[in-house]
Amino acid sequence: MQSEEPKSRTDLIRQRIYIVIYGTNTRAGKLFDIFLLIFILLSVAAVMLESVQEIDEKYHTTLLVAEWIFTSLFTIEYILRIFSTRKPWKYIFSFYGIIDLLAILPMYLSFFISGSNLLASIRALRLLRLFRVLKLANFIGEATNLKGALRASRAKITVFLFTVLIIAMVIGTLMFLIEGPEAGFTSIPRGIYWTIVTLTTVGYGDIVPLTAFGQFLSVLVMITGYGIIAVPTGIVSAEFTKQRIKQQKNQKPVKKSGIVCPLCNAEKHNKKATYCHSCGEKLIF
Amino acid sequence: MQSEEPKSRTDLIRQRIYIVIYGTNTRAGKLFDIFLLIFILLSVAAVMLESVQEIDEKYHTTLLVAEWIFTSLFTIEYILRIFSTRKPWKYIFSFYGIIDLLAILPMYLSFFISGSNLLASIRALRLLRLFRVLKLANFIGEATNLKGALRASRAKITVFLFTVLIIAMVIGTLMFLIEGPEAGFTSIPRGIYWTIVTLTTVGYGDIVPLTAFGQFLSVLVMITGYGIIAVPTGIVSAEFTKQRIKQQKNQKPVKKSGIVCPLCNAEKHNKKATYCHSCGEKLIF
Amino acid sequence: MQSEEPKSRTDLIRQRIYIVIYGTNTRAGKLFDIFLLIFILLSVAAVMLESVQEIDEKYHTTLLVAEWIFTSLFTIEYILRIFSTRKPWKYIFSFYGIIDLLAILPMYLSFFISGSNLLASIRALRLLRLFRVLKLANFIGEATNLKGALRASRAKITVFLFTVLIIAMVIGTLMFLIEGPEAGFTSIPRGIYWTIVTLTTVGYGDIVPLTAFGQFLSVLVMITGYGIIAVPTGIVSAEFTKQRIKQQKNQKPVKKSGIVCPLCNAEKHNKKATYCHSCGEKLIF
Amino acid sequence: MQSEEPKSRTDLIRQRIYIVIYGTNTRAGKLFDIFLLIFILLSVAAVMLESVQEIDEKYHTTLLVAEWIFTSLFTIEYILRIFSTRKPWKYIFSFYGIIDLLAILPMYLSFFISGSNLLASIRALRLLRLFRVLKLANFIGEATNLKGALRASRAKITVFLFTVLIIAMVIGTLMFLIEGPEAGFTSIPRGIYWTIVTLTTVGYGDIVPLTAFGQFLSVLVMITGYGIIAVPTGIVSAEFTKQRIKQQKNQKPVKKSGIVCPLCNAEKHNKKATYCHSCGEKLIF
Repeated sequence: MQSEEPKSRTDLIRQRIYIVIYGTNTRAGKLFDIFLLIFILLSVAAVMLESVQEIDEKYHTTLLVAEWIFTSLFTIEYILRIFSTRKPWKYIFSFYGIIDLLAILPMYLSFFISGSNLLASIRALRLLRLFRVLKLANFIGEATNLKGALRASRAKITVFLFTVLIIAMVIGTLMFLIEGPEAGFTSIPRGIYWTIVTLTTVGYGDIVPLTAFGQFLSVLVMITGYGIIAVPTGIVSAEFTKQRIKQQKNQKPVKKSGIVCPLCNAEKHNKKATYCHSCGEKLIF
Repeated sequence: MQSEEPKSRTDLIRQRIYIVIYGTNTRAGKLFDIFLLIFILLSVAAVMLESVQEIDEKYHTTLLVAEWIFTSLFTIEYILRIFSTRKPWKYIFSFYGIIDLLAILPMYLSFFISGSNLLASIRALRLLRLFRVLKLANFIGEATNLKGALRASRAKITVFLFTVLIIAMVIGTLMFLIEGPEAGFTSIPRGIYWTIVTLTTVGYGDIVPLTAFGQFLSVLVMITGYGIIAVPTGIVSAEFTKQRIKQQKNQKPVKKSGIVCPLCNAEKHNKKATYCHSCGEKLIF
Repeated sequence: MQSEEPKSRTDLIRQRIYIVIYGTNTRAGKLFDIFLLIFILLSVAAVMLESVQEIDEKYHTTLLVAEWIFTSLFTIEYILRIFSTRKPWKYIFSFYGIIDLLAILPMYLSFFISGSNLLASIRALRLLRLFRVLKLANFIGEATNLKGALRASRAKITVFLFTVLIIAMVIGTLMFLIEGPEAGFTSIPRGIYWTIVTLTTVGYGDIVPLTAFGQFLSVLVMITGYGIIAVPTGIVSAEFTKQRIKQQKNQKPVKKSGIVCPLCNAEKHNKKATYCHSCGEKLIF
Repeated sequence: MQSEEPKSRTDLIRQRIYIVIYGTNTRAGKLFDIFLLIFILLSVAAVMLESVQEIDEKYHTTLLVAEWIFTSLFTIEYILRIFSTRKPWKYIFSFYGIIDLLAILPMYLSFFISGSNLLASIRALRLLRLFRVLKLANFIGEATNLKGALRASRAKITVFLFTVLIIAMVIGTLMFLIEGPEAGFTSIPRGIYWTIVTLTTVGYGDIVPLTAFGQFLSVLVMITGYGIIAVPTGIVSAEFTKQRIKQQKNQKPVKKSGIVCPLCNAEKHNKKATYCHSCGEKLIF
């Protein structure tokens, strides 16, 4: 067994912070996550309310102060996250690391570009952490299933979307030539916009065919859209069905053993383990 | 065999009412249910007609009288339901108990808050009893299957909806910043409203992107919506398919034995049973 | 073997007509069917063109004459169908018999009710015969599969639609109370109309929520609609999947033996059969 | 082994060009394809920009020159394709051959018919070649699966669409008679247009029922549309599910042997093969 070199005070503090910020198994870690989620929700709400003119006029200062408080807290949290982890660069360029940065940048940018602070609503993405916090085996499992099914059907769906886009270009041009600017088809890109609006059955009604021939072509587009909406659905359904039937066959629930690493949440540690097999941190509390 | 303590007159009346109101196996019980459904339909129709201004102006008094008659009948029924059951609190806080109360409250509230009587249309929910009344093995079975499939896919769908909402927040903000109030994007919440309208392919057309970049982003949102509509469908389809294939394998129809309890409709009683194994009432008629 | 009583001249003519009109195996029968379909298409086109004001103003007489010619032909065909079949009442009250009558009635009614002749476009339903005429094993088989899958999911879908309608009533009332007539919610029935328009993701945009709370409720309705659109799709998908997997297992193509009855198209006759096992007509040609 | 007759100089040039233009295995062939795709993208972009009035006014000459350059290049390519292949007629009447011609025709037609040059955006269809160029086993395989599933469900979907169209005719007529021109139902064809817009849940809102009865009928149409959207989805889902379950059973990956024909990309050649088993070209490079 490799001997552990004595840790400096900073190292100990760093580790303690790490466990609170990144971990979800200790009480402090759980509390931290819950408060973090509440703060994110409140700050997103503040940004949204600020964008409503009537509310902004009345409570401008209050909202601004609140936003700066939240931004300061998130900035401190961001710095602590970088400081406490052993691999700061890995965190900075991870999915959550980038989101955490994007969540505080807009406020600082608002000194230079007015209005950019509203981009702070991007911090809603931080709510995705909720899945980690809940850590309900159920939800995590389902999210994994979802991801798996989507990944398996990715290639099929790419082929499908690419073909749809090419068809939309051709139909958009035809509609532009048939209908012309009176009906709102002022250019080919707008024709393509209309085609996608129709094919996906969104149907805003801002651009609408007026000639008999244009309406006839529209009907064909709609029926095509109706038919091809079946394709991605069919692909994903097939994937889920396969997964579900497979699940039913191997229904032995995976037993998870005792000790869980407070840093990286790795499970299935041997009962006598002293170090985490995944991140190498000590498992002693 | 446990000896039955002699019942008081009130107890006998209570039991008789119970059988008529809650039971569906005796002739009186069936008649009661059918009349109840007809009364619910008529009272809902009355409330709806009252909300149409032209009709209300002509027949205001007639409709008001009708509504009060129905409300009185439903109030009496509600009191009898509480009086006749052995566990009144269980009924009061059951799904149907709450609906039954909500069905009569609005009329009484209309003394204090004018217009609240229109909320009486909530009594449409009472029509859900229809499933119990029909009691066609088929329909009940299908409803159970539906519920089962939905429950099994609940976790997957929650993860999915939560992710969609977070994405809607980010896209709603972007569209608000790109398009601005001229196009109807007067605030971030309205941007989110537009995003949901577009993602779900509803597409009212009350808010519509006007700039080229906004329309480009819209197209991306629509195609995403088109793609992800496949996800809940896929989840539920997979569930139904699994269920259906399973059903096909175990196709022995469940035989239901003779005696059915007139109070709680519990089935499969032994032919010699004297008391219901589910609610404890006597099985002698 | 039962001896055949000598047929009268009328009987022979009747049988000959029957084979041409009802049968699809002889050359004459095929030609008749093809001409019938062409006439139906032309007559439907005539009715449609008549409804377009600009065309009607120019060619009113031509179209009227054409319509009367088609109606006369269809009337003669209808009388011949009744005359030639052995069971006229069965035909008259059959699905196709009723459609054939509805296809000629509107023109005669137009003497009494002006404009009713446009209802003649109902004869488009006669095109459903196409499936019989094509008689491509493929198409007939597929239509049967479609019907089978829909029948099997009927009970599930009824429960589902009924529940949706009840929910639509409650939401329609809430939206009527929240939004009021300024937004187009002039009555509860219109609220229900809006709810269905939204739930089914049609989204005309003729009635649209204007208040923040109304828009919030709309978003919930849309997401619900998005979620529950999965239900009927899931039901039908499961049915088709089951069917398809079953088909794959029993892939022995059903061999159909030689003689086909020219009257009722019944197949699988013994090679020595003299009478059709289905309609009793002679099988000698 | 059959002796090869000595090839003339022209034949050698022809073969060399063939390998570059049609083949995708040599470096020159790959480069050619990549440049071709880039040129197609640029030329499509040029056509689209020309259709936007503000851009066209500023850069008219630049765009026109660009379009003519691209058209010249594509014309040369088209001629080389015909010249270099052994079966020019097969190419000319193939799917890609027709698209290649349609991609250059509009520019030449623009001498006679002004505006027809915008049809050049049809060359977007040439981007479908991308699938061949990528030649990722994955994508090609998925495209084949997609095609297979769609082909298998073709008959079912034809029966379905035909039935939907017939129903749309009848409903369109009814709505025209109920609503009349005030609501936008100016003719039966427009009524059919509205029915398709509603059935497919597109819902533009350009034509909208105004009477209570019309709205009631609309609700029925919407719910029907909601129900029957399940049918094509169900059909395609079932097909994919069947395919997917089948795939899972035979998961031995098909091993593809060494030599690939540079002309037709046929694979699985015996290692000692001298001629392509598919197109007959020599396999020596």
